[in-house]
Amino acid sequence: MLVAPRNPLNIGAAARAMSNFGFFRLRLVNPYAVAYAEARSAVGASAILESAQTYESLAEALADCSLVVGTASAEGRKLEHPLRRLEYGARLIRRHLATAPAALVFGSEKHGLSNEDLAHCHWLMRIPARRAHGSMNLGQAVAVCLYELVRNPRAAVTAPKRPQPAAAGELERLDGLLLEILERAGYLNPPTAGSTRLKLKRLVRRMNLSARDAEIWCGILRQILWKLGQPG
Amino acid sequence: MLVAPRNPLNIGAAARAMSNFGFFRLRLVNPYAVAYAEARSAVGASAILESAQTYESLAEALADCSLVVGTASAEGRKLEHPLRRLEYGARLIRRHLATAPAALVFGSEKHGLSNEDLAHCHWLMRIPARRAHGSMNLGQAVAVCLYELVRNPRAAVTAPKRPQPAAAGELERLDGLLLEILERAGYLNPPTAGSTRLKLKRLVRRMNLSARDAEIWCGILRQILWKLGQPG
Repeated sequence: MLVAPRNPLNIGAAARAMSNFGFFRLRLVNPYAVAYAEARSAVGASAILESAQTYESLAEALADCSLVVGTASAEGRKLEHPLRRLEYGARLIRRHLATAPAALVFGSEKHGLSNEDLAHCHWLMRIPARRAHGSMNLGQAVAVCLYELVRNPRAAVTAPKRPQPAAAGELERLDGLLLEILERAGYLNPPTAGSTRLKLKRLVRRMNLSARDAEIWCGILRQILWKLGQPG
Repeated sequence: MLVAPRNPLNIGAAARAMSNFGFFRLRLVNPYAVAYAEARSAVGASAILESAQTYESLAEALADCSLVVGTASAEGRKLEHPLRRLEYGARLIRRHLATAPAALVFGSEKHGLSNEDLAHCHWLMRIPARRAHGSMNLGQAVAVCLYELVRNPRAAVTAPKRPQPAAAGELERLDGLLLEILERAGYLNPPTAGSTRLKLKRLVRRMNLSARDAEIWCGILRQILWKLGQPG
């Protein structure tokens, strides 16, 4: 929900972020008429923008929402509302959204939400940006908030599936090829060849090769070996 | 690090997001010259943009970085690089940043990173956006990635400090005032007054009042009580 947005690019950017993250109900309260018309007529304006609804007051726009969260910059005037960090606030919103509609309210680019607007909110949320810098761009703030709503906390701790690792036999083949190449190349010094061989084996295993990459390496080494066997 | 950005607004937006989240070293590879000049001369161009460095090749821009992470859209062409979700990738980047510099590389608005560019990357990262929608706006993508880098996972699970809750004595005072008002207003029905009194006490306690708000409520009730005592 955008209150009194003034820049068509920001309206478009907010709609785009919504589409990116799967939120489809954009509501605008008193948008600057020229900006709204321009945003809607822009090339690539999203379906979200086309189906956006406009209202004359925040109260009307919010009527069916049972949780209303306002966004505030880090500056924090003296507010009587609880001001929650996005990381925590988003959890509460997600939980609410599971059973009932919630509204996330952004103020105008210049002044943010008025005290009048804030009075409609159950609580406020802020993006943990540097206080020194002041407020964020509206389109970017919308994107960051929606991202936090859809991010999967489990994805942060579970490593994604790794490609199938190379089997020991494949690594042995690789060891053998490497050793043969280094012998031919004069890299191996006979008195220390034994310990060097072990060093090489460990070196190969530290590569953490996938089955596919081990195959590629074997191909490369075979080619080098073949070349070494050719008469100079 | 932005490779071949073409839109001055996006260059400015990327710099602004960096400033918001406390990242100060912007590097540009082959920016579209007109766009770069325009972004730098824009009103409110950040110090980050002023101190940005430009390079002719990605290799030069990356020379001092020991971790290079490319950003890719969800579409995922056939890539040999591991493609990690932002939630997980950001953890790895944060860990790396504790000891050594890392680069986060964004491609041009139109084509993203080329295969040539991708070959410089240790791995790739994608923002978990809807696949249906396609790619994100460059400035917004930068904002979301940097937010994930600075977000505090602990802030998601720890409730922020609550205001001091009202003490039992204060609630008792409130109960007393409310009861007196309701008696005068004829709300209490003598035969059930006892159970109503308990219902009211529970009602008051479900308000989860802070000490400050309990005080405000007591003031309100005292005023009502005074008014009720006045001759109509």
